[in-house]
Amino acid sequence: MTTTRSTDLAEVLSEAECWEALASVDLGRLAVRAGDDIDLFPVNYLVTDRLLYFRTAPGTKMIELTAEPRVAFEADGLLAGRRWSVTLKGIAQRLSSDAEIGDSGIQRLRSLEPSTKWNYVRVTPSAVTGRRFRPTR
Amino acid sequence: MTTTRSTDLAEVLSEAECWEALASVDLGRLAVRAGDDIDLFPVNYLVTDRLLYFRTAPGTKMIELTAEPRVAFEADGLLAGRRWSVTLKGIAQRLSSDAEIGDSGIQRLRSLEPSTKWNYVRVTPSAVTGRRFRPTR
Repeated sequence: MTTTRSTDLAEVLSEAECWEALASVDLGRLAVRAGDDIDLFPVNYLVTDRLLYFRTAPGTKMIELTAEPRVAFEADGLLAGRRWSVTLKGIAQRLSSDAEIGDSGIQRLRSLEPSTKWNYVRVTPSAVTGRRFRPTR
Repeated sequence: MTTTRSTDLAEVLSEAECWEALASVDLGRLAVRAGDDIDLFPVNYLVTDRLLYFRTAPGTKMIELTAEPRVAFEADGLLAGRRWSVTLKGIAQRLSSDAEIGDSGIQRLRSLEPSTKWNYVRVTPSAVTGRRFRPTR
């Protein structure tokens, strides 16, 4: 990977690097507004064509996403001993057609919570930013 | 650790187990409201006496915390091959006295971003919840 810009504190990842990093792990955290509050969940996810997909059992998370589709998502990991973090902001939308669900590949994703009743959700990003931190030890 | 309640999907952690889990790692993610938006950052943190501490360089994050002190925080990790996740909601407040900063132990925390100018922040929790997921493979 090449780096487009660096600061004293961390290197800023290019958008391509952000997507490459996001594709290298499958667990992230989704932040959703719930009225005046914020909910924050771990989610298994995948990326396809610069879109983010996850699935969720019916319940609070899905209700909140319907009411407040603007979400933030973060994933991080280690690469060559350095931690990276990518944050994505976007609009969450439930997938309604079998074709969309099939094309996304989301049905093959492993999950922290096996379930039979899934909602499939796509996040269309409005901004993707990432950093690679300096080694800390 | 003992478990207080289980569901088909995941085991619910007791509050004591949540704090024990939070103390076992030092990287989490902080979600902060920024007007209609949500920002989500990785932060190094520590817990002392059921309070959460982190530090941040001056800038956007600190400004948002001052304007919108209600935050959500998540950390997760692996224990005996099973992933746990703990989410904490609370009020963030900048530490203003040297005594508070010293007592917290936060100055000894390693950081992703070495810096010399720190703000030290305490999150006083209003709710702490956690789950332990079933092994997925």
